[in-house]
Amino acid sequence: MKDFPGTPGTLTALILRILQCLFAGGSIITMATAPTFFNSTAFCYLIASMGLQVIWSFGLASLDAYALARKKILHNTTLVSLFVVGDWVTATLSLAAASSAAGVTVLYTRDLRGYSVPDCPKFQMSVCLAFVSWMMIEISSLIMFWLLAAGGYKIQQLNEWKPL
Amino acid sequence: MKDFPGTPGTLTALILRILQCLFAGGSIITMATAPTFFNSTAFCYLIASMGLQVIWSFGLASLDAYALARKKILHNTTLVSLFVVGDWVTATLSLAAASSAAGVTVLYTRDLRGYSVPDCPKFQMSVCLAFVSWMMIEISSLIMFWLLAAGGYKIQQLNEWKPL
Repeated sequence: MKDFPGTPGTLTALILRILQCLFAGGSIITMATAPTFFNSTAFCYLIASMGLQVIWSFGLASLDAYALARKKILHNTTLVSLFVVGDWVTATLSLAAASSAAGVTVLYTRDLRGYSVPDCPKFQMSVCLAFVSWMMIEISSLIMFWLLAAGGYKIQQLNEWKPL
Repeated sequence: MKDFPGTPGTLTALILRILQCLFAGGSIITMATAPTFFNSTAFCYLIASMGLQVIWSFGLASLDAYALARKKILHNTTLVSLFVVGDWVTATLSLAAASSAAGVTVLYTRDLRGYSVPDCPKFQMSVCLAFVSWMMIEISSLIMFWLLAAGGYKIQQLNEWKPL
């Protein structure tokens, strides 16, 4: 269970964290280079939420890299609980931010035809990157939650225990 | 583990499902009574998503009520896996729908001051009800996922097993 792909301190987890960082960073850059993004609260919220995700994912990527380099095992209940809560919060905020920005982008591109808005392709690209980033963090979040609920280390101890 | 609050066939689960139905239904009714809702794709998507949630939650509420009345236990891996997938999908769709509608509502009420939109209070109420409904389905979803990951019945069998 400790080597289950995606659990803290594995190569899969490190790759997932790096991808989360890259896509969230890409979403922020694309949105920030659109001069009219500040006209909508949803777009500002997307930047804030993706910023939080970059910080969180970068922190965990560093921790995973450290654990891989020093061959440390990061599986204790307190640490995994912290990862579960952090991942769940960032995943929820990312989905909410991506969806609200998507709602506004669809409104601009399809519903308000008479209302001219430049930068729509940039908004669409930013929303797409945010959704991909959310998918990555959601995978991490589900793996962490599974790890906490299944309590891999405890089950391993049970299996190792032999009757006298 | 089988009597853990919120697991299928318990009174807590039944109450959660009924609340999901009520709030999602309230959200649909509030949105549908606003004559201008069809001008925005996000509002139409909110109605569709809340409709799906009403159907799913009503189905599971009926199952819980049946299990409570007949004292049946609904804990087998196939059934719990089905509940986990269904709950996760409906919870994700509900959050996405509520967030996209919230993004558009904030745009109407705060960002586009010159663009007159009636029915804003109804949109706000509908979005609030959708968020409350999402919270309920998220609780159910987390409990189901925990139940599947922890595999309560298997651990119970391990505990009951005594060395010779």
